[in-house]
Amino acid sequence: MRIDIISVLPELIESPFNASILRRAIEKKLIEVFFHDLKDYSSNKRKQVDDYQFGGGSGMVLMIEPITKCINILKSQRAYDEVIYMSPDGKMLNQKTSNKLSLKKNLIILCGHYKGVDQRVRDSLITMEISIGDYVLSGGELPAAVLCDSIIRLIPGVLGNETSALTDSFQDNLLAPPVYTRPYSFNDKNVPEILISGNQKKIEEWRENKAIERTKKLRPDIFD
Amino acid sequence: MRIDIISVLPELIESPFNASILRRAIEKKLIEVFFHDLKDYSSNKRKQVDDYQFGGGSGMVLMIEPITKCINILKSQRAYDEVIYMSPDGKMLNQKTSNKLSLKKNLIILCGHYKGVDQRVRDSLITMEISIGDYVLSGGELPAAVLCDSIIRLIPGVLGNETSALTDSFQDNLLAPPVYTRPYSFNDKNVPEILISGNQKKIEEWRENKAIERTKKLRPDIFD
Repeated sequence: MRIDIISVLPELIESPFNASILRRAIEKKLIEVFFHDLKDYSSNKRKQVDDYQFGGGSGMVLMIEPITKCINILKSQRAYDEVIYMSPDGKMLNQKTSNKLSLKKNLIILCGHYKGVDQRVRDSLITMEISIGDYVLSGGELPAAVLCDSIIRLIPGVLGNETSALTDSFQDNLLAPPVYTRPYSFNDKNVPEILISGNQKKIEEWRENKAIERTKKLRPDIFD
Repeated sequence: MRIDIISVLPELIESPFNASILRRAIEKKLIEVFFHDLKDYSSNKRKQVDDYQFGGGSGMVLMIEPITKCINILKSQRAYDEVIYMSPDGKMLNQKTSNKLSLKKNLIILCGHYKGVDQRVRDSLITMEISIGDYVLSGGELPAAVLCDSIIRLIPGVLGNETSALTDSFQDNLLAPPVYTRPYSFNDKNVPEILISGNQKKIEEWRENKAIERTKKLRPDIFD
């Protein structure tokens, strides 16, 4: 899979791709991630990429010209499955969407910043608008990193142990059960006895019951 | 406001705090952010902070000892309003929660990683569990950065123009209206005439109608 991230501040999300799972996925060549600085596609000498809103009002808007130029160059080089715009009014990201996107070959992710992008970009170039949640952020950069993380960890070979992602929350409409590790006893609080019983069948039953209990209590909306 | 972020991989989210709005907020001393590497609080020579799950199963679990040590040291230095754990089964973050947290003085944010933290940490030390959305990520680091961004931009003085945050999506249960900037005409697509009319009253009416229209279409659930 190849992901091209277009941003006016790509340096904002360098570090998440330089550590841990994302870095290893890149090193193992399971995924290629390219950052494109919108300023490199500006047609004017001051490398301007934003301007005031038509009609007045606070907050700058990213201009259509450099975005169009960047996306068109990328599209001339290969076919893209989706051109995604990260926006708080996009479709809410969920595990199902991440699963689906993890099967794609080439993705472009456009990050808004300030007040967002010129609406004509959204009308003519974007095939999918995604929100990571009902809150406002400074730009689409962190949401792009979140989207990439959720997708990339699902690509076979990225996680050390393949079964790990399948037992995460949401994959079976259940929250994950509680987990415990050493020491067995800490400040008089012990690990549940069942987990050290060695009875794997009982342990799995306990975990499933705990997952159901927790989901019913915290997220009755996703429990079916 | 002071935010202490505890993580096993703090380097993962260095860059979001080193650019743009978060960096300026730190430079203006409107906010202090401290990263704590869990490995520095390990009691063993190998700086171990995670271990296998009791009861078996894939994925490592963060140990209770170093987390307790780190949180207790911080708590001995000042009072904290909340000790937040980022988790996909936490309470879903929304703008209202961000608004509320932006008024706090001292926050601790604990990032899980791998399979999460020992449940006894959540039972005894955490006062608030927050999820940024219904999808699984490699750790709580990106969610912590998202939470910080959503909070910090609301602190007075952080955004250049105070009114900017108030006209964002969600602040009035409406999505933001479309925005446009120069050039007026691009590839035969023009900016809506009304926005260059100079009639501010009509422009505001148009924007409100567009915001209502967009919210009804895309997010009938938040429209009242």
